[in-house]
Amino acid sequence: MVLERIQKENDIQNIAKDELPVLAQEIREFLVEKISRTGGHLASNLGVVELTIAMHLCFHLPEDKMIWDVGHQSYTHKILTGRREGFDELRKYGGMSGFPKRNESKCDAFNTGHSSTSISAGLGYVEARDIRGEDYYVISVIGDGALTGGMAFEALNNASNLKTNFIIVLNDNQMSISQNVGGMSWYLDEIRTADAYTNLKKSLEKAIRKIPSGGDQIMNHLRKTKSSLKQLFVPGMFFEDMGITYLGPVDGHNIKELVRAFHEAKKVQGPVLLHVLTKKGKGYLPAEEEPSRFHGTEPFDIRTGKPLKKKEKDTYTDVFAKVMYEMGAKEPSLVALTAAMEDGTGLAPFHRKYKERFFDVGIAEGHAVTFAAGLAAGGLKPVFAVYSSFLQRGFDQIIHDVALQNLPVVFAVDRGGLVGSDGETHQGIFDLSYLSMIPNMTVMSPKNKWEFADMIRFAIGFTKGPVAIRYPRGTAYDGYREFRPAIEYGKSEAVFEEEDIALISVGHMFETAAKVREKLKEAGLNASLINARFVKPLDEERIAKLAEDHRLLVTIEENVESGGFGERVLEFANRMALDVRILNITLPDDYIEHGSVDMLRKEVMLDEESILKKVLTVYAGMQHEIAMKKGDQ
Amino acid sequence: MVLERIQKENDIQNIAKDELPVLAQEIREFLVEKISRTGGHLASNLGVVELTIAMHLCFHLPEDKMIWDVGHQSYTHKILTGRREGFDELRKYGGMSGFPKRNESKCDAFNTGHSSTSISAGLGYVEARDIRGEDYYVISVIGDGALTGGMAFEALNNASNLKTNFIIVLNDNQMSISQNVGGMSWYLDEIRTADAYTNLKKSLEKAIRKIPSGGDQIMNHLRKTKSSLKQLFVPGMFFEDMGITYLGPVDGHNIKELVRAFHEAKKVQGPVLLHVLTKKGKGYLPAEEEPSRFHGTEPFDIRTGKPLKKKEKDTYTDVFAKVMYEMGAKEPSLVALTAAMEDGTGLAPFHRKYKERFFDVGIAEGHAVTFAAGLAAGGLKPVFAVYSSFLQRGFDQIIHDVALQNLPVVFAVDRGGLVGSDGETHQGIFDLSYLSMIPNMTVMSPKNKWEFADMIRFAIGFTKGPVAIRYPRGTAYDGYREFRPAIEYGKSEAVFEEEDIALISVGHMFETAAKVREKLKEAGLNASLINARFVKPLDEERIAKLAEDHRLLVTIEENVESGGFGERVLEFANRMALDVRILNITLPDDYIEHGSVDMLRKEVMLDEESILKKVLTVYAGMQHEIAMKKGDQ
Repeated sequence: MVLERIQKENDIQNIAKDELPVLAQEIREFLVEKISRTGGHLASNLGVVELTIAMHLCFHLPEDKMIWDVGHQSYTHKILTGRREGFDELRKYGGMSGFPKRNESKCDAFNTGHSSTSISAGLGYVEARDIRGEDYYVISVIGDGALTGGMAFEALNNASNLKTNFIIVLNDNQMSISQNVGGMSWYLDEIRTADAYTNLKKSLEKAIRKIPSGGDQIMNHLRKTKSSLKQLFVPGMFFEDMGITYLGPVDGHNIKELVRAFHEAKKVQGPVLLHVLTKKGKGYLPAEEEPSRFHGTEPFDIRTGKPLKKKEKDTYTDVFAKVMYEMGAKEPSLVALTAAMEDGTGLAPFHRKYKERFFDVGIAEGHAVTFAAGLAAGGLKPVFAVYSSFLQRGFDQIIHDVALQNLPVVFAVDRGGLVGSDGETHQGIFDLSYLSMIPNMTVMSPKNKWEFADMIRFAIGFTKGPVAIRYPRGTAYDGYREFRPAIEYGKSEAVFEEEDIALISVGHMFETAAKVREKLKEAGLNASLINARFVKPLDEERIAKLAEDHRLLVTIEENVESGGFGERVLEFANRMALDVRILNITLPDDYIEHGSVDMLRKEVMLDEESILKKVLTVYAGMQHEIAMKKGDQ
Repeated sequence: MVLERIQKENDIQNIAKDELPVLAQEIREFLVEKISRTGGHLASNLGVVELTIAMHLCFHLPEDKMIWDVGHQSYTHKILTGRREGFDELRKYGGMSGFPKRNESKCDAFNTGHSSTSISAGLGYVEARDIRGEDYYVISVIGDGALTGGMAFEALNNASNLKTNFIIVLNDNQMSISQNVGGMSWYLDEIRTADAYTNLKKSLEKAIRKIPSGGDQIMNHLRKTKSSLKQLFVPGMFFEDMGITYLGPVDGHNIKELVRAFHEAKKVQGPVLLHVLTKKGKGYLPAEEEPSRFHGTEPFDIRTGKPLKKKEKDTYTDVFAKVMYEMGAKEPSLVALTAAMEDGTGLAPFHRKYKERFFDVGIAEGHAVTFAAGLAAGGLKPVFAVYSSFLQRGFDQIIHDVALQNLPVVFAVDRGGLVGSDGETHQGIFDLSYLSMIPNMTVMSPKNKWEFADMIRFAIGFTKGPVAIRYPRGTAYDGYREFRPAIEYGKSEAVFEEEDIALISVGHMFETAAKVREKLKEAGLNASLINARFVKPLDEERIAKLAEDHRLLVTIEENVESGGFGERVLEFANRMALDVRILNITLPDDYIEHGSVDMLRKEVMLDEESILKKVLTVYAGMQHEIAMKKGDQ
């Protein structure tokens, strides 16, 4: 196998030219085989095999800096930098990350995970290189989907100033995760199809040259000037007008052509955009046919492409999908928004049924939030379904455009809490904090699937301001179905009322809290079990009452400590000088790596056993204090 | 006066055509006269007098929706909608806001304040209109500076889909607050100067038509196709290619021409970009000459344009400017970044001296943060100077690009806390919370100007991760100069050590805390005075020790409660079960309007008197409890 001769970075430069297509084929087979077992990002990786090979042929690592936008297409890069063996434990706890990581390899120049950051980061490297008088290449690889994120545009706008080399590879597969949207994709379409006009251009050029009075001069003038007329002869004129040299389009599956293009790009003294056309899922038919499904996939049968595990239970996203579909009929002013995550957020059924009330804005969370504010100001009821960690991109817009005007926008915050194998960049562990600090905001979180459905309906019916519902990735908990009192604004739910110890859980931590309660019972302790329902506003009446009947309140949430639910309870108890001990169980002040959610919960001590232990320890301490006090008297 | 005949919206439609230039002149004089007394945004408002008049002639309020990006150019709009009298109390406590406010007038369709939101909001109105089957015009007015914000691009990208009218006015004055930057401004330049090529184009068109074999057909083909060749005959082709009809450029100070353009724009079934060329400061010479200084101005002498009050003391921004200038020489890897705020953030001297180590990225905070991360990854020491409320735009990038990789970026967070007359959108009241929740982040805040200088030097020398220094708008406190122990990582400063009560202040609240301490002394109570210095990490050792010697800890910060410093103290005290009473003094969970900072502090009870009262009340309650307990025994 050619692949086996690649043990570390730059080894590829010893592979003979005619072996390169073989290598590409071997990498594809390797990727399909490995990912079919572990799951992971497939389609995007299959699309850039040749592109990555060409880059590793033309640049030298780790000196040259390759920055992979989003990073879910970096698998071939990992293979070519000696990490082939990592694929057995890909995205598993303690194993290799599915994204570039500086602490994983010196060949990973910059961590990525969220979209549209690569040009900004690359530009930083370029300026640092020039100021420090160093000499290396910087290559940022960005997809056309990521180009719909405004930050990429901000970076392009800034790259214009450069007088030294900076290579931006536009990996154009005409998709983000789903089909790409908006004017920019049309513009790229123009360029892609420019070939059709080539002959026309040529005849035009000929004609101009024939103009009796100075046709040649006109032509020369045209070529030299920065005028828009230049467009006649150069595609990608918008980039050129911004000061960025445009090269392409290049066939992204032709290594020879790619290498030639990179050599040309290296010669440019300034920013250069190399437009590469690739096919998502290339070389594996099921992925070519369903690139969106094979964007991020669970383990699958290579032969058929079908998932190995049959999904048995609804996920929270499925529940959201069903309720939105149902509410679309009942509430004509309901509109739904996604930022390039139609499938991931479960809005596809709503889209199919209520086409005109669905908006995919591209990878543009900031715009989505303010757009939603505009929709609400215009009299509609927008629901923006978005992953928790991506909504961080709209933080200012929530404060400034939605909450300040108290507009009734609903945020369906999916992937709240630990998400698992996507790791650090995707964990939704800040949302309760960054949403709760915003005035006028209501923050809810459901204990199980039934309550989730009720909360969505409640939020859609709520007219007094913005509401966020935060729910986790994965299977929706279907226990405690019989506990379903109607949602009442700002009110928690007392599931079991005892004395002494009260467990107060936020959202999906209810399941764990209920188990902790069982275990406490086994240890002879009867604990109350409270489902917070509302993180903001806090159900102060409930906390005050619990403090009367209990000596220990335990808050349990899958969110960082700072600004979370536990601190809301603490603040109230302190303000009212409540005579009760409080134990806040939260995530640590740290980033949390990839791995199964169960493993991660153990690591951060948010699993049933760890929580039980903490509660028992604190409780025993309290008993001891009481005993000591009694002894004193 | 023509102006007096305008008492409410739409009155302008009764003004005769030949009186309109008179009206424009009167409005200009009115603006200069009023703002010379109250202060406010001048240059941007003078630039859009004719544009606003034309809009009010062509549209009907409040049915049609005008959305003013940033909103600091909405004064003429306010005058024409019956708010002329509000200008006497402009930006004062209880008076008229300097920005559009829905709760101020039904003619203000959307609140603004931060940049680049207007197209997103306008698009929301447009889609709502169409879905609800309503009939009105939506006009978003955006500056070329605001167009450097990626969100505007995200919105343009989405507007492309429209099949109904949406008018985007590009108010092109070739500036943001300072000179505009980047590729987009070059592109607009191309268009502005397109006239020079008009003759060339015409002769080219003629020549093509003369091509023997089907020149006419080529021409027709060109006009019809969406090909890039169309650029030959239409300026603003990038917008056209994105699916947005381009009209212009139009002279923004010619009412007749503007009205004609708006009538044309109204006919377009789809998104239309009307490119209007204006001059910032138009009609008032000092503002035309120094548009940046007259962007937002203090009261000034109309005759000379000079400020009425001479600045006597350094602001925090001045201190920052000096230390950066000094450190530039000492630290060759130091680089400075601003998002279109070179003057406002005090980076101008650094820029002049270290030209190649200064970056103005445009109104692009998200990019700025990730760019800084790239610079740091490349071996430099970047300092991003930015207003607190604008850094909210980079929240995700701080989490995802800087702190996750623990890169040593310094955030100089100016305008932290209450900013005064700019009001709700500009108050920097969330920063301690949104920065403290981020793992790996260090958050500092100085008590006075000397300590601020020390902190900047400390942060620049700190290599272990990101550091934010948060400081307020306005005069730098120069008291307590003699208290200047060296900055020690994570350590607070004990200024006075007493017993019983400890006041722990964050940053600039030290001045107030010191006064409260004096007052307590007058009341016979000796209080310790602690300067927190570090909000994160918390000086736990200090808190533990204070809890031993004191019965009441009072935290004082100008930040929202949720996730702030007080809660950090509370959390630690609770976790360690410290036997001490804690009083957290913070801002309320609410937006805070415009007005002088002193007035606002009184309103939110963060002034010396209110704090003293709170402390005394809580302390008296504690004394009472003790007395009761003694009675019990």
